[in-house]
Amino acid sequence: MIFTVKEIADVIGGIVEGNPDAVITKFSKIEAGEEGGLSFLANTKYTPHIYTTKATAVLVSTEFVPTEPILTTLIRIEEPYVAFAKLMAFYNQKKGKTGVSKHAAIAEGVVWGKDVYIGDFVSIAENVVLGDNVKIYPHCYIAEGVRIGDNTVLNAGVTIHHECIIGNNCTLHAGAIIGADGFGFAPQKDNQYVKIPQLGNVIIEDNVDIGAQTCIDRSTLGSTIIHKGVKLCNFIQVAHNCEIGENTVMAAQCGISGSTKIGKNCVFGGQVGVNWHLTIGDNVQVGAQSAIGGHVKENATLLGTPAFKASDCIKSYAMFKYLPNYVARIEELEKEIKELKKEKE
Amino acid sequence: MIFTVKEIADVIGGIVEGNPDAVITKFSKIEAGEEGGLSFLANTKYTPHIYTTKATAVLVSTEFVPTEPILTTLIRIEEPYVAFAKLMAFYNQKKGKTGVSKHAAIAEGVVWGKDVYIGDFVSIAENVVLGDNVKIYPHCYIAEGVRIGDNTVLNAGVTIHHECIIGNNCTLHAGAIIGADGFGFAPQKDNQYVKIPQLGNVIIEDNVDIGAQTCIDRSTLGSTIIHKGVKLCNFIQVAHNCEIGENTVMAAQCGISGSTKIGKNCVFGGQVGVNWHLTIGDNVQVGAQSAIGGHVKENATLLGTPAFKASDCIKSYAMFKYLPNYVARIEELEKEIKELKKEKE
Amino acid sequence: MIFTVKEIADVIGGIVEGNPDAVITKFSKIEAGEEGGLSFLANTKYTPHIYTTKATAVLVSTEFVPTEPILTTLIRIEEPYVAFAKLMAFYNQKKGKTGVSKHAAIAEGVVWGKDVYIGDFVSIAENVVLGDNVKIYPHCYIAEGVRIGDNTVLNAGVTIHHECIIGNNCTLHAGAIIGADGFGFAPQKDNQYVKIPQLGNVIIEDNVDIGAQTCIDRSTLGSTIIHKGVKLCNFIQVAHNCEIGENTVMAAQCGISGSTKIGKNCVFGGQVGVNWHLTIGDNVQVGAQSAIGGHVKENATLLGTPAFKASDCIKSYAMFKYLPNYVARIEELEKEIKELKKEKE
Repeated sequence: MIFTVKEIADVIGGIVEGNPDAVITKFSKIEAGEEGGLSFLANTKYTPHIYTTKATAVLVSTEFVPTEPILTTLIRIEEPYVAFAKLMAFYNQKKGKTGVSKHAAIAEGVVWGKDVYIGDFVSIAENVVLGDNVKIYPHCYIAEGVRIGDNTVLNAGVTIHHECIIGNNCTLHAGAIIGADGFGFAPQKDNQYVKIPQLGNVIIEDNVDIGAQTCIDRSTLGSTIIHKGVKLCNFIQVAHNCEIGENTVMAAQCGISGSTKIGKNCVFGGQVGVNWHLTIGDNVQVGAQSAIGGHVKENATLLGTPAFKASDCIKSYAMFKYLPNYVARIEELEKEIKELKKEKE
Repeated sequence: MIFTVKEIADVIGGIVEGNPDAVITKFSKIEAGEEGGLSFLANTKYTPHIYTTKATAVLVSTEFVPTEPILTTLIRIEEPYVAFAKLMAFYNQKKGKTGVSKHAAIAEGVVWGKDVYIGDFVSIAENVVLGDNVKIYPHCYIAEGVRIGDNTVLNAGVTIHHECIIGNNCTLHAGAIIGADGFGFAPQKDNQYVKIPQLGNVIIEDNVDIGAQTCIDRSTLGSTIIHKGVKLCNFIQVAHNCEIGENTVMAAQCGISGSTKIGKNCVFGGQVGVNWHLTIGDNVQVGAQSAIGGHVKENATLLGTPAFKASDCIKSYAMFKYLPNYVARIEELEKEIKELKKEKE
Repeated sequence: MIFTVKEIADVIGGIVEGNPDAVITKFSKIEAGEEGGLSFLANTKYTPHIYTTKATAVLVSTEFVPTEPILTTLIRIEEPYVAFAKLMAFYNQKKGKTGVSKHAAIAEGVVWGKDVYIGDFVSIAENVVLGDNVKIYPHCYIAEGVRIGDNTVLNAGVTIHHECIIGNNCTLHAGAIIGADGFGFAPQKDNQYVKIPQLGNVIIEDNVDIGAQTCIDRSTLGSTIIHKGVKLCNFIQVAHNCEIGENTVMAAQCGISGSTKIGKNCVFGGQVGVNWHLTIGDNVQVGAQSAIGGHVKENATLLGTPAFKASDCIKSYAMFKYLPNYVARIEELEKEIKELKKEKE
């Protein structure tokens, strides 16, 4: 790519402070910026780099107030991270793959749209329906009756079990498994377990991203549902009969137990665990490694194992560190009381 | 399916309360029951729904005592969940797949029984032995010398490394990895590590279910052993040289470190971690996200990080929440003692 | 194998105590040693077995002082575990597989060295470069432009995304995923998220072991870097833009959030979580299930959620168990103070 700073500012609607004619040839990190590089400043941890970066231009917030001289050219814009992402996406937009590998195995009765790509060793079973512009990378397995919407991408080695439904504009990363049997066993009096058949499916709505290795299990009856706009990172376990609300985001290695319903616009840190049969409201924020043991009302911010109000939990954690000190003080108090009582006698 | 309530009650040995001639056409959830639907009530959380369900009939316990008028037909049976599962399994029992995909790669010397199914792009190495009615879905890899028992199902993308042994009536869910090398490295004086070859194998006994993505590592010498009837959910790590006792059940994302032996009939919540070289007795119950740091005697119920007696841990957790309050009270006591002492002077 | 004890001692430079002519035919565990077996004693937990083992010979430390009569033959050596590992590796060294499966799909422009093995249903995309003696097991997918160094082994079902670089002498276990997109989304004012393109790659240096299912995500810009000698167990999540220093070791199910840099020679227990944008120094040790929330200086030993100095954390944990006791003592103190004050009035 070769653009001037002014050309880029015009594309994203930014305002140039510095040399509008400087030439941009690549994207670069602010801390390791190079001549010709375009960077961005969004996280204040990186602010010191803006005074020393060798990047030719940097996207910054309209509200950024420098505290030292700036040597690079600034492009001011309301949301620099979003603008940077859009520029990268624009640049990254290569002509998508199309065509069907001669090494793929496609069953009878598969229906598909325009510009589909099917990679090597993909296996597609009977009565699968693929939308326009679906891209399926090598080693995916799409079982009977699955439907996949337009513009959805399945990276390598994704498995979609029978009768599951995937929406439009979704991305499933490598190794994701959709619709494996939920973990349902009925205990017997002789300590053995009898498997409960899992007869439902998984429904993933539009604009959902599913991380590498992540598993969404099929429901016992009805559907496990991932609503539109949800973003799940890698290694997440969503058990059978769960429902995850619109635009909720989870970091890696979270585990959601069976039949739990999570609201819209929630944000979960990594390695969070949630018990089963719970209802979590909208806009709930949960700190990493927390364990949710009960229902949660909307707008809560939780932390801890078991989780409670985050601001309270932080105080308790801070004191946990000094427990030996508090215990020593209790012992000292006991000694003093004893002395005071003795003196009285 | 079309059955009358009476026909279903007869199959499972239940007693009808209501209309024995009502027609059942599907399974349905109790809270979303539909005309023609058959539901069940096992978890008391769902009891309120039995008074409002639109399901035509509901399996309930022989001991269930309604507190409001019941509009649906009841089928009373000792274990409604188990009966429901059996009915679903009966219904779900489709003619199993058989035949060998023309896209599979089968090495020399493979021995197999009757009615085996081998899906697309399955790779089976030399000297593998497959029992009757084994079903191997697409993209599985079965390495040299593996033996798989009768009626065992390998879902898509399962890997079984060389010389491992899988019993009868097992189900391995998608992406499970059996017999990868255990994590054994000997530290050197220059801070590098030398790999310890892992020369053992994994033995999985009969009636075991292994969840999606779950890994059971091969032992250094001898065998990592999963005893009969064990049920492991998704994303579980069982390290080398472990042994898991009969009918033990683990929820998703548990991690068992090397050389630990776990007893029979244990129940582990999700995300539990267990240290290495430990012995856990029979009938042990462990709460989710707990960390087991030492040996555990039989019949223990544990919780916490590190785990101790669950009933005690719950008390400590409850107080943890109020640590700031206790610390304030210590400070208050200190002030009062100081005053009392001052007054004395 | 058939060797005398003396022959084995000579190979590893050990000193025989007992019968140098005894014949060794296999490796065996010290607790289950058999006639003809060679075992080792490294972990003191196993010391009692040395007095009862039926193994013909046992590798022990030069410093081992028996407290009971020894019936087996000893081979004394400075590091018995390492010596045992070397012997096993020597024995395990089968002629490596070579050749290209007729069921593999190799694109144009792939360059490779001598003695490469490509298993069934491996898909290799354009412009991949493979070194000498690279072994790629079934169902691996190697995307465009990947480079893999000499003697590196990819077990079954490994995915390496485009432009990633793998060093020499690495082992990637089954199901590992290298270079999936990092989890980067920019929140919008309407609560939706816009994906940030992940334009970087992953660089894995020499002598690295990557566990089964483990994911190393590609960076947004630049590289996620795993330095030489790192050993990662199964189910580990390394997010985008991370860097892990030389010879650092992590047990299963750890999760490292984006842009965190970890030093050399660190040791992490299982299920550890690390927050993003952190710097962890060299030689840091972290106990299992800990959560690292801030920067960590070199040589620290940490434990807890959130983690602090391990020796302090152990004390706090010990007291956590007795919180109800301390609270009761505070209540008792309050009562006594009240009485003392009352008496004064």
